[in-house]
Amino acid sequence: MKAWAVDQGESDAVVGFGEGRIRVDRHGARAEKLARLASLGLPVPAGLALSFDAVPQFAASGTAPPIPDDWWPVALRSSPRERDWGGPPAILAIGAGAGRDALAARIGRDAALELEQRSIIGFATRVAGLDPERFEADPRVRCGETLADRVAALKAIYAAEAGHPFPEDPDAQLAAAIGAMARSWGAPSARILRTAKGAPEGAGLGLVVQAMAVGLGPVPSGTGRFQAVDSRTGAPAVEGWFVPNTLGPEARAARERLRLEGGEQSLAATAPEVLDSLVAMSRRAAFGCGDAMAFDFALEAGQIAILDAVPAARGARASIRIAVDLVETGAIGREDALLRIEPRNLVEHLHPAVDPGAVRDVISRGIAASPGAASGPLVFTAEAAQAAAAQDRPGILVRAETSPEDVRGMHAARAVLTIRGGMSSHAAVIARGLGLPCVVGASDLRLDTVARTVTTSDGRIFSEGDLLTIDGTQGEVLAGAPPLLQPSLDPAVLTLLDWADATRSLGVRANADTPAEARVARRFNADGIGLCRTENMFFEGDRVTMMGEMILADTSEERRAALDRLLPMQRADFEELFATMAGLPVTIRLLDPPLHEFLPANEDEMVDLAAAIGLTLDEVRARAKALAEFNPMLGLRGVRLGITIPEIYEMQARAIFEAAIAVNRAAHEPVVPEIMIPLVSANREVEMIKARVDAVAGAVEREQGVRPQYRIGVMVETPRAALRAGDLAASTSFLSFGTNDLTQMTYGLSRDDSGRFMRTYVRYGVFPEDPFHSLDLEGVGELMLIAARRGRSRNPDLTLGLCGEHGGDPASVRFCKLAGFNYVSCSPFRVPIARLAAAQATILSRDTTT
Amino acid sequence: MKAWAVDQGESDAVVGFGEGRIRVDRHGARAEKLARLASLGLPVPAGLALSFDAVPQFAASGTAPPIPDDWWPVALRSSPRERDWGGPPAILAIGAGAGRDALAARIGRDAALELEQRSIIGFATRVAGLDPERFEADPRVRCGETLADRVAALKAIYAAEAGHPFPEDPDAQLAAAIGAMARSWGAPSARILRTAKGAPEGAGLGLVVQAMAVGLGPVPSGTGRFQAVDSRTGAPAVEGWFVPNTLGPEARAARERLRLEGGEQSLAATAPEVLDSLVAMSRRAAFGCGDAMAFDFALEAGQIAILDAVPAARGARASIRIAVDLVETGAIGREDALLRIEPRNLVEHLHPAVDPGAVRDVISRGIAASPGAASGPLVFTAEAAQAAAAQDRPGILVRAETSPEDVRGMHAARAVLTIRGGMSSHAAVIARGLGLPCVVGASDLRLDTVARTVTTSDGRIFSEGDLLTIDGTQGEVLAGAPPLLQPSLDPAVLTLLDWADATRSLGVRANADTPAEARVARRFNADGIGLCRTENMFFEGDRVTMMGEMILADTSEERRAALDRLLPMQRADFEELFATMAGLPVTIRLLDPPLHEFLPANEDEMVDLAAAIGLTLDEVRARAKALAEFNPMLGLRGVRLGITIPEIYEMQARAIFEAAIAVNRAAHEPVVPEIMIPLVSANREVEMIKARVDAVAGAVEREQGVRPQYRIGVMVETPRAALRAGDLAASTSFLSFGTNDLTQMTYGLSRDDSGRFMRTYVRYGVFPEDPFHSLDLEGVGELMLIAARRGRSRNPDLTLGLCGEHGGDPASVRFCKLAGFNYVSCSPFRVPIARLAAAQATILSRDTTT
Repeated sequence: MKAWAVDQGESDAVVGFGEGRIRVDRHGARAEKLARLASLGLPVPAGLALSFDAVPQFAASGTAPPIPDDWWPVALRSSPRERDWGGPPAILAIGAGAGRDALAARIGRDAALELEQRSIIGFATRVAGLDPERFEADPRVRCGETLADRVAALKAIYAAEAGHPFPEDPDAQLAAAIGAMARSWGAPSARILRTAKGAPEGAGLGLVVQAMAVGLGPVPSGTGRFQAVDSRTGAPAVEGWFVPNTLGPEARAARERLRLEGGEQSLAATAPEVLDSLVAMSRRAAFGCGDAMAFDFALEAGQIAILDAVPAARGARASIRIAVDLVETGAIGREDALLRIEPRNLVEHLHPAVDPGAVRDVISRGIAASPGAASGPLVFTAEAAQAAAAQDRPGILVRAETSPEDVRGMHAARAVLTIRGGMSSHAAVIARGLGLPCVVGASDLRLDTVARTVTTSDGRIFSEGDLLTIDGTQGEVLAGAPPLLQPSLDPAVLTLLDWADATRSLGVRANADTPAEARVARRFNADGIGLCRTENMFFEGDRVTMMGEMILADTSEERRAALDRLLPMQRADFEELFATMAGLPVTIRLLDPPLHEFLPANEDEMVDLAAAIGLTLDEVRARAKALAEFNPMLGLRGVRLGITIPEIYEMQARAIFEAAIAVNRAAHEPVVPEIMIPLVSANREVEMIKARVDAVAGAVEREQGVRPQYRIGVMVETPRAALRAGDLAASTSFLSFGTNDLTQMTYGLSRDDSGRFMRTYVRYGVFPEDPFHSLDLEGVGELMLIAARRGRSRNPDLTLGLCGEHGGDPASVRFCKLAGFNYVSCSPFRVPIARLAAAQATILSRDTTT
Repeated sequence: MKAWAVDQGESDAVVGFGEGRIRVDRHGARAEKLARLASLGLPVPAGLALSFDAVPQFAASGTAPPIPDDWWPVALRSSPRERDWGGPPAILAIGAGAGRDALAARIGRDAALELEQRSIIGFATRVAGLDPERFEADPRVRCGETLADRVAALKAIYAAEAGHPFPEDPDAQLAAAIGAMARSWGAPSARILRTAKGAPEGAGLGLVVQAMAVGLGPVPSGTGRFQAVDSRTGAPAVEGWFVPNTLGPEARAARERLRLEGGEQSLAATAPEVLDSLVAMSRRAAFGCGDAMAFDFALEAGQIAILDAVPAARGARASIRIAVDLVETGAIGREDALLRIEPRNLVEHLHPAVDPGAVRDVISRGIAASPGAASGPLVFTAEAAQAAAAQDRPGILVRAETSPEDVRGMHAARAVLTIRGGMSSHAAVIARGLGLPCVVGASDLRLDTVARTVTTSDGRIFSEGDLLTIDGTQGEVLAGAPPLLQPSLDPAVLTLLDWADATRSLGVRANADTPAEARVARRFNADGIGLCRTENMFFEGDRVTMMGEMILADTSEERRAALDRLLPMQRADFEELFATMAGLPVTIRLLDPPLHEFLPANEDEMVDLAAAIGLTLDEVRARAKALAEFNPMLGLRGVRLGITIPEIYEMQARAIFEAAIAVNRAAHEPVVPEIMIPLVSANREVEMIKARVDAVAGAVEREQGVRPQYRIGVMVETPRAALRAGDLAASTSFLSFGTNDLTQMTYGLSRDDSGRFMRTYVRYGVFPEDPFHSLDLEGVGELMLIAARRGRSRNPDLTLGLCGEHGGDPASVRFCKLAGFNYVSCSPFRVPIARLAAAQATILSRDTTT
């Protein structure tokens, strides 16, 4: 193709593609991309770029830059700094009359005249602002004998409509077209639209003037789009389309496009050498641009012209494969690849999804509390969920909200749906831990637990056994069972995560309560367990009855007797957990929830408990009532239990120590358990519990002849603990921020009750985001920074961690890295997300600190 | 009396009383007081003071300071820096043998020999460490013919027991006595005891050596205690006792003491001139010591000797009268008087109290939630309380806990008792507002609401109608109706409070919800209303039905219709409030509690509500259930209501503006209402509500032709609001700290649920004090300081206030003054306490800052 340069001295007002002086912030994205493709030796039609400053000057003076004779006809295309700021559509074939003969020599006289017709209509409507109907509907044009007649007719109509003859001078046409583009860019509506997309006031318009490559004329001619990667998988593949004998705008509007491969008329069949060339060019462009690109191309009598290139279309899954392939071909570095992938996109690789092609019969929208999709028959109780699972038809458990008693039902269910609750409600937290799809806060549904029906806002009724699908990724409830895509951790993902692990300097642990969850954590390469919630261990089997006995005990002796029966079970749980984690750190939170959660909520179960422990129903009822609280979240729980009923923590400490010693004896990797004290608000609480735990360790040492090794730390969940972190750190080894509760306390906002207004709040922008979803840096984050600073200044060896749900949120992970934390801990299924986010945070914090 | 000085050059090791060089921090409190009394011309026996440094030196060297001949016999008394650090008891009549003749000339030979006997026994037991039994039980002593025989016998026994003759040399006796005192001071048990009372390690012992004034011999002789003020009222009066013919220790141990006045044998009858002298001396001492003093005095043949003086005994009430009288006699300044009174002591003046002389049949102890005492028949429901009041027998309302529905019952009751709850539970807050005695958290009582009985921990049963007494000052529940003392704001209190108002530079407002409470606030001279909780207005009469209709409305129109009916009532409330406060500032908090509090809790009332608003019972029940929350404290309340249901705040703003305009038209003092937004956690909440309130003001201006004047501010109750105070202050006029909720959020601790473990926590020292009672300076206080600093830096004119219960806590008031706050606001009945505390804080902050 032709090469040409405009000598503008030092100025960059008008720069040719080959000059190496085109800059995105002076000439716009299209100009920059075309210049780069040209420099890579790709067949880009000759052209030049007008800078943001130059365009208004040309428009004001009514002039155009000088164009070499052999460029005519030319295309004029917009080139703002960012592609999505818009910009007026291209004006094509300017100066087609002047270039007619040269063009005819390339594509034939008829095609040249066809182009000239389009050129006149385009100029008339886009530049002179005339009504296209006047041209297209005129019988002289529609019925003109020859192409030349029609060209003449169009010029006559133009003269009549415009009041002056059609300007034959190509330079005058170009100058007028530049003026029209500039006017269009300055129109208020265009300004508003681009400002909404983030363009600054006064953003300039660059323009590209290029010799036309014309997709009309001798076969193979036409226009198409091409990329060399599969947009779904990212694997090498030919993807795109082609429309013979068209110009770009017509091709994009065409109803019928040819596939590039497959079929008799496909480009692969008709011009295989063209496809081979495109594949080769694509490889060169990927290397040169550092990304897989999609080309807009024209085919002019078999000659390829690259008109534009943008990043190849791709889904979340494909983006990972593309990035990894780019690294492996040397186009980009590993850190580049790590930074390109949105960590949340890994979700697709970890959970089943509703097939994007399936029909979605959405019956309710709630909060996407735990990702993935699952279908099954509707069940209304934990018992029904277990029964359905026993019949191999695991169901969708729907509840107004869940409580610890529902956990066994959740274990048996395929997915969970609740009418109430938010991102951090009980159902959401447990479901994420189990990796179950979950939608919460579906408040437009009406639940009738007696009739066992769910009614939608438009009156559709679903009964027990009806098939439903929960899309926890989208937060939608679907009727029926649309096809699902199963997840797979494909090799590219594994490669990327390996790179992430090699890069990151922030630990990623998992919140895991059971050996099963611990195994998931290991499968996802967690660096340990950052939060083991021991309370869930007490709901299994008949343990909850022993808990009831312990809770309702009259004397310390009775309480100890019940705890003595629980001790071996708890010890066995810890043994399995330690063995599974094979020497990795395991942080065990001492019992946290208010005791009434362990007592039965319904009459039948109360009768059972009363019988089991030898009390009357009235006694059980009365004591359960006495334990009820107005605001259980702020009541007698956490370390307050440890202070007021010391026997519980003593039993737990003993179970931990004995389990660790047993596992160490069995020649596993040495275990150093980390004991975490929950809901601390005063340093004296920590001192008292630490003294008791140390005493238990001393007793175990005397009995077993082995000194238990352990670390003690504080779960920072109250603003006061954050403010007093200096004191707390003085006598402990670690602080782990329970950001769920810390967010609740900082906002005065219950995670269980926020669902009713959180969407309103986010919609009105009262909160920029749900703070249970993405860490509130201005409030909660400041408390964390204060705590980190005060804690480390009193204890430089202090380990700092985060173990709330935010541990799986990339922005929150980045914050933790910047704040100097040692690790984050999240649901096992979010560990891969956190690993990638941690790698990104490591790279970005390096950039910030250097 | 004799005067004498020891010349010790520059040293102050041994200083005579008259030298003007005795200092409390070198010679101790007793020495300092005696020297001062002597300098005032009071008859203090001649003496000298040994410094803290001198005592161990004398003890080590076995020497004594030289004593003039005419001082013998002398008394040796301890003089540590603080009186309550203890110190060994006095050793009396040292050198009685040497001074025998001189003494006999003053009190007669027999008395002199009596004293010598005591002197020998005292030396033998206290200095030589011999067994007193050996002396007192010996027949030679018990049956000796003459006094001289007995003296000789005692000396013989001494020689036999001690193994050396009784030391006749008085200087040797004194040196040994000093050594014995020093040993006693250094004993481990004495050290531990005084350290527990705050004495530093190595606190020294000063000693006083004084010529003995002997209460034996010719009438009138003896020892006594005297003060010139009534210990109960503080009014001038003679109070004390006298024991003829004794020395001090015997007199203090005597079973029968004579009254000073009244009766034939009283000092007033037998030696009136002595009493007159004591009164005159007392007046001189009060002026010289700056306090009413009680004297230990000896009467030696009619001559008064002042042996010691300590502040006169006084109850809380008397302390005020004494302080005021001291100011009026010029003995002290007003600020001195203000600093001397513990603000809580005003409680006695504001509330009835159980007569201190009455028999107290305590059946339960709980938390002293609202001071005062009241008796009445037991009632179990709000209805019964109203019925009892209607029969003129207002009762004691007992509930497990109270809810807003009980408020009307509380209005009708004499006192309130709850089984659950803490210092800031609903019952406690409302009772304090109403000035009703209240005990909460009486968890050792068992309440049976069906049988209508209360059972004590030892099985006593009280039924409806049984008489009980609530002592809300002590936190006790008494059976029956013991006699009560009625309060009276006596003139001294009024004078003191006038001085407080003239001194303080910190405003004191009242938390008042109703015109009745506003009138109390005015009576107690509050500077305005700092918190008007509008929700209580909605429980009156049939308003709660309209609230129910509003809450259960399906559409915005229905909701507005219900609110339109509430508007005139709310407006009338505000008009009365504004008129009562006559131009003083009134801060009105927009609706705060969760809406379900306004819905009926029991079936009967649900039926009524359903009928009243045309819904079915099932509908009412279902919607009430849908509004229930897990943690109402952290739920849909405060500004979250204002954002999600804008109509409520719009109605309230309109009522406020219309009421202010009406009151201003009626030529009252101009009202500038302050509108306060509750439970803010994000600045956007404030911006949105402010915009809506401003819009309502614009509408009212258009309708009425008057521009409403008002200020808008934020109630800082969440840690996040405190952290973001800079933003909040930028667009508002005031921040008022709701320290009840701020404490709840900072600790993660519900005030309603903390009662179950708060006492344990305080007992174990986990929390130094209940943080709902006295502001937690380390946590909540730091957040307040952060907020104050950030708020003022963005808005230097920002008004800062506190409107939690802590507003009536003196330590918290002092903190607010130091933090630069403009005012505190508390329950009306605590306003006098806060006024005094504010004056003290003003004085103390001046000392701190200069």
